[in-house]
Formats: sequence, structure tokens, C-alpha cells
Amino acid sequence: MHPGGDKILLAAGGALEPYWALYAVHKEEHVLEILSEYKIGVLNPESLKRQESTDPLDPYSGEPSRHPALQINSLKPFNAEPPASVLADSYITPSAIFFKRNHLPVPKVDPETYRLEIEGLPSGVVSVTLSELKSRFPKRTITATLQCAGNRRSEMNKVKQVKGLNWGIAAISNATWSGASLREVLLHYGFTPEVAINAKHIQFEGLDKDVTGAAYGASIPLNKALSEEGDVLLAYEMNGEDLPPDHGYPVRVVVPGVVGARNVKWLGRIVVSHEESKSHWQQNDYKGFSPGTDWDTVDFKSAPAIQELPIQSAITHPAEGSSVERGDEEVTIKGYAWSGGGREVVRVDVSVDGGNTWHVAKLYSSDLGQNPAPGRAWAWKLWEIDVPLPDGAQELEIVCKAVDNSYNTQPDTVGPIWNLRGVLSNAWHRVKVKVKDDQK
Amino acid sequence: MHPGGDKILLAAGGALEPYWALYAVHKEEHVLEILSEYKIGVLNPESLKRQESTDPLDPYSGEPSRHPALQINSLKPFNAEPPASVLADSYITPSAIFFKRNHLPVPKVDPETYRLEIEGLPSGVVSVTLSELKSRFPKRTITATLQCAGNRRSEMNKVKQVKGLNWGIAAISNATWSGASLREVLLHYGFTPEVAINAKHIQFEGLDKDVTGAAYGASIPLNKALSEEGDVLLAYEMNGEDLPPDHGYPVRVVVPGVVGARNVKWLGRIVVSHEESKSHWQQNDYKGFSPGTDWDTVDFKSAPAIQELPIQSAITHPAEGSSVERGDEEVTIKGYAWSGGGREVVRVDVSVDGGNTWHVAKLYSSDLGQNPAPGRAWAWKLWEIDVPLPDGAQELEIVCKAVDNSYNTQPDTVGPIWNLRGVLSNAWHRVKVKVKDDQK
Repeated sequence: MHPGGDKILLAAGGALEPYWALYAVHKEEHVLEILSEYKIGVLNPESLKRQESTDPLDPYSGEPSRHPALQINSLKPFNAEPPASVLADSYITPSAIFFKRNHLPVPKVDPETYRLEIEGLPSGVVSVTLSELKSRFPKRTITATLQCAGNRRSEMNKVKQVKGLNWGIAAISNATWSGASLREVLLHYGFTPEVAINAKHIQFEGLDKDVTGAAYGASIPLNKALSEEGDVLLAYEMNGEDLPPDHGYPVRVVVPGVVGARNVKWLGRIVVSHEESKSHWQQNDYKGFSPGTDWDTVDFKSAPAIQELPIQSAITHPAEGSSVERGDEEVTIKGYAWSGGGREVVRVDVSVDGGNTWHVAKLYSSDLGQNPAPGRAWAWKLWEIDVPLPDGAQELEIVCKAVDNSYNTQPDTVGPIWNLRGVLSNAWHRVKVKVKDDQK
Repeated sequence: MHPGGDKILLAAGGALEPYWALYAVHKEEHVLEILSEYKIGVLNPESLKRQESTDPLDPYSGEPSRHPALQINSLKPFNAEPPASVLADSYITPSAIFFKRNHLPVPKVDPETYRLEIEGLPSGVVSVTLSELKSRFPKRTITATLQCAGNRRSEMNKVKQVKGLNWGIAAISNATWSGASLREVLLHYGFTPEVAINAKHIQFEGLDKDVTGAAYGASIPLNKALSEEGDVLLAYEMNGEDLPPDHGYPVRVVVPGVVGARNVKWLGRIVVSHEESKSHWQQNDYKGFSPGTDWDTVDFKSAPAIQELPIQSAITHPAEGSSVERGDEEVTIKGYAWSGGGREVVRVDVSVDGGNTWHVAKLYSSDLGQNPAPGRAWAWKLWEIDVPLPDGAQELEIVCKAVDNSYNTQPDTVGPIWNLRGVLSNAWHRVKVKVKDDQK
């Protein structure tokens, strides 16, 4: 019944240690407590072979080094977010502190022997080298924000425990990405309108694999991949340099406007198909449910895989529990706002009294000040506002909510969007700050 | 300062009566009260020419007859919605009770002399007859829901007075529309990629005109009009018959997924342009603002014209203030749900305790049961659920909220999305119902 249970069963009769090393996210006391219910006995110590637990057995032993500022949610696989306080200080997030969300060990890929396989075209399987990808296709560059479906999950956990990494507000970052257009690659290798009669999805497989050899996988609708305005890239550069190992070196998919989980890293295979990816992450994870749905009643087939994400915003300054001086008369508030599907953020409303009265923040986008084309606003907006301190207030409840150009807005509270996987957490962000009387 | 003030000024020195007849929506006591502040004197009765106010002077004297079931919000221009109680009884709304939103008198158009002018193409102005439109282009049919930007405005009025017609929950309806594809028409008459280098908008002008001769107008982004997946129609049929006079006979634009106001009726002119329509309704109306923005501070240039609408749903049964019998043990709840931009409604959550606990409703779409293509879910879904009566409850607060396939959802409350024009009212819909003890 557990997600991925069919893989756990492959361990039957063998050592569990490699599984514990790979699915290290389970190494927590409450998981061990649950497992203890299913204990049926102990092996005869005489028949127990000693397991080596030195580095060579640890699939995570070759991971890259990471920036010490990152706030780590899980070491194996590595999942970390930048400190929220620095997130809105730069429109482009430096790659080293860009949030990292790995599902499996980081694979080591040799750029010389790297091959991208493309299946499902009339010409049969195509194998493309890295240098072919770079030389045969124009280098396209976009600025796009990626967000994990679990961003702000910690706020859902406060309502009621959910399953998943306890992300704060910074499982979101913004970078420039350069690479070949997936549309142009597919057309070059023989995609025709006839193919589209049956094909409805583009599947991606990573080179990151679990102990059974199964790769991370996901898919997106064909029309997103084929649209000239979809801007889907086979990216080999991030912020003007080769992709870092944690972000998919040498090639990843960047599907702008779409949840991070479909932006498959260490891309090994593309399959043009009539069906979605069969992977656990497409079928039995990364879907949204009603707050009334629990693990006894959930039917993963009943909900669509998350693709475009809903409107989102959060306050990066001031921090929860900090204080402002009454004599300052104003409080400066900063944050980010973004919406999926290329929908441009057109307004951020900010309140310092819990949502009773509202002020409109100033929005910032790229230094170039270019307006995105309609439906292609892939990057976030940063925002800032100085709000007068209300007379006599001892505490401020600072709230933000964003509006996109489809005039979708964020729900007021977390409870009614709570879901058992803790995804899609986009209620108003709230931060409480004390107002201190000035030192005499 | 009043919207349309430049047109009011054209009346200076002349009779006001034709303006009062045309902008009949202003014929209300509180408008007269405001105007009385600006009274600067009375004309010498000797110099006052008698004005005829018989029918020939009333531009609304030739309006079509209407179904008596319609609930009228304004007679001149005619604005009416069907009774909410019947709205969800039919997936396709009968044309006679489809909500009607006219801005000006209904023009009488002779199909024999009707011409659609198309401007802004390299070939110069093109003039197309109705029979050419029908014979030169394949007849395309879509099912699409139209919604007025002011649907559910009455709920905003309860928070604080707004300007606009006091719509209930039924300024939304669903029909099949047939006509020529706007994309195919533009390509046929010479639209080329070179045109698109400068052109960014498609403007529409109606044949409905005010006393100065200015037509109703609106525009949509060029990419919506040109996309194969945009499905924009020059429709000449509604529900399988000629368009009724109130719905744009002989030709209207149907822009699926986009606010009603851009679906221009009695279409007289199409202009391919580098700029949006200059009309009042595009520039100074049908835009969303922060709840903190009032008529003293509003800058209409600061907000984008509403195009795609946000996720929406409402309860059509039971009615506010009605009652259920405790012995029935369950209450049957029905309604509609829809989202703009072709985003499909994937779930409707229903609560009978004000939003503390939630149940998932069953969704219904067309009888054909066809799944819409991704991004082309133009039609609403109807929904229904039987919810057990909570033990001992004396009153139910029934609430619904919908989720679309971008996982956008509705905000919890009206206050924080309140805006001075009362548009985009899409908070959770709430209906209070009494639970009556059974008759002994």
C-alpha cells in the first residue's frame, strides 16, 4: 500500500540496508515506529551475514559539495532551500543557492559519452550527443521560475500532519536557462502532424536511478511541448554556465510555467507517447486532493497530475517573530509572487492588520524591464512596499496575496486547501511582527 | 470624471433627454440626488423648446420581446439573468433564458445588407457578406460558457456598495456556438506572419451605437485570435439556430474562456492593430483593483483589461433561506463550476458546516462525455452531491469551491477581493438553509 511498495517488495529475502540508504528520507523515528507494528520476528544471528555499510554501498557517497547557506530538508536525497531572507534580494537566484530538489542520488554523467535518446518518432530511436544538441539547434534563452509542488508545505503541517519534506517558503527560485528548443528538436528529428494524431504526451526520463535501475520520470502534455509559445527547453546552461550537477548536468528539461517535478534533470530519454509517464511521481504523487480525502480514501487516478501551478506569493522580509521600532513610522515589506502557465502577476496586495485593509505593492521584474509576451510570463516578480505603522499597534499581522492576469488570486486560509500530500500550499502568507516602543 | 464623461459633454447646450433615454441605467433616485449637487440654475421657460419624449425618440423602442422568466436587472439597456433555480437543470442553457447583457440598444440588422469589415490586413479593408461568411469557411461548432465580469456582484454589494448592475449568481450560461473560425477568416483575407510583427491585438466593434454614433467595442490579444487552439468564432448560430437579436444577430464573436464583454455582439468591424480597443469598456471598465482602491485613487491604466476569468462556482440548489426536513437525512446540493482560459474544472468541494469539513461533488459535463483537449475546456461543469445532515444541526451553511486543472481555487471570502466596480466576484458561494424537525 505504501507508495513505491512494489519496489520495496523487491528487497524481500535480501538486505534492507541498500534500500534504507537509497530511500534515506524514511530514516526518521516516526517511520521506524510505524514499521515496528509489522515486525514478525528476528533472524537467527547465526544466519545473519554481516553487511558492509561503508561508503561504496552508499549511492549518495559521490554527491557534489553544496553551499553552506542552504537550509537542508533532507540529505539523502539532497533537498534544500535558500534562506528566505536572501531570496528576494536578487531577481536571478544564484545557482549555488537555487533550491535543490533531488528524488534520487545525483548521477555522474560523462559529457563525452552522454546520449539523449528520443523515441516515438517515425524515424525510430534517435540518439543525440551533447555537442550535436549544442551545434544543430539555435541556443534559446529564457528566464523562468521553478517551484516545487511542496513549497510552503510546513504551513500545511501546522494544520494537520502531511507526508513530504517540510519546505518553508523558499522551494522556489528564478534563473536564466539556455538550450535547444524541444519543439525544434522534435521537428528536426521527424515529428509530423500525423504523429500528433495518436501522441498526446511527452515523457521524460532522468539518468538518476533507484537500486532497481528504474529512472526518475515525468511527462507533460504534447501541446505544451509543441507550442511555439510553450518555450520548453532542453537546457544545458543555467545562469550562463554549464548546469551544476544538482541541477541536471549535462542536460535537463525546463518546462516554464509548470511544476518543478516535470522539469526532469539529467535527461536521458524523451518518449513521444499516447500516454502519460507511468512513473510513481506522475501517477501516484504530485496530485492535489480535497481536504476531506485521507490515505484510506484517496484514489490517485481521480486527480490530474499537477502541471501548471496556481498563483503564489510570500513575504521574505520581515521575518516571523522579528520586530520594528515604533519611531520608524513605516515597515518595509518585501517578497516574491509568481503564477503558473505563463500568467503574469499583475498585482500584490499587502496588509499589516491581518487582511482588514490593503495596500498595493510595487512590482519589480528583470533589470531589462521587458514586458513578457501574453501567456509567456515565466519569471516571478519581486515586490516591495513601505506601509505606515498603525497607531498604537503592538503587533502586526503582515499578509500578502497576489493576482495574476487571469485575475486568479490566493485563498485566504490554509485549512480548506490542506491535502494529504501537502502540495499546492498557496494561501495568503502571514508573518507576525512585534512593534517595539523606542528606547528612551 | 464620470466614466464616459466626454460623451456626456457632447450634450452641452442641447437636450439631455436622448442621453437619459440611452443611458437609462442612470434613471435612479440616488443618481438624481448626486446630480442635484451640480445644479447651477434653471433655463428661462420661454427659451425652453418642448422635447418630444414619445417612442420615436426612445432608442430602445424596437427591442425584441423577452422570456417572462428572466430576472431583469436593467430594462434599458436590457440586462437580465435566468432564475438561479433552473440554471443547473440543463447543461445547455436555452437561448431564451441565457443571460443577457446589453450595453446599448439592440440594433436591427438586415442580413441582406449586412457587411463585416476587416481592417489592418495588407489587402486593405475587406468587406464580407453574411452568405460569404457561411459559404467560404467551414462551419465550426464549440460548446462554450459565457460569464459576465459582474456575475455575483450582489455579494460584493453586501460588503460595500459598488457601481454596476446587481447581478445574482446567474450572469453565466452555456451554449453551443457555430460559425467561421476567426483564425481561418484572417488567414484567408491575407494575414501573414509579417502582420504579426506589429499587430498585437484584434479589435471588435459592434453595430450597437450610442447617440454620438460610437459603437460598443473591445479587443483580445492577437495570439488568442490566431491560435489553432484558441477556437475564436465569428458565430452566426447559437444552440443550432440563427443568433437571437439579444445575442448578436446576425454575427457575434465568441471568444471562449474570455470574459463576456470581449464577445462582441452584432459584429460590424474587425481591426488588426498594434493597440487595444480605445473603447470605454476596454480602457476604463472591466478591470480589477485592490480592495484598498477607491474612486479617488483609481488609475485605470494601472490594471490590465480582464480577458480570461478566474475559477468560479456557485450553488443553484437549495436556495438561500429554504429548509430541509431532518427526516430526509441527506441534503441534495447542485451547482455549476467553470474556469477561464480553457482550464478544466477538476474538482468541486462542498461543505454543509461553513467550510470545516468537505465532500467531493460528482461532476457532469456534456451528454457526449467527451474529454476536452488540454487547455480547451470552454464549457462549464454541473455538479451534484448528497451530503448527510449533521446530527442536531438547526441550520446548514452550505459552501462550494471549485478547483481547475492549474489547481487554482476560489478565495474564502468576498471582502478581500472587493473592488470598486464589483467585478471578478468568485469567493466561496455560501447558502444558509434551515433544518426543520419533521411534522409529528
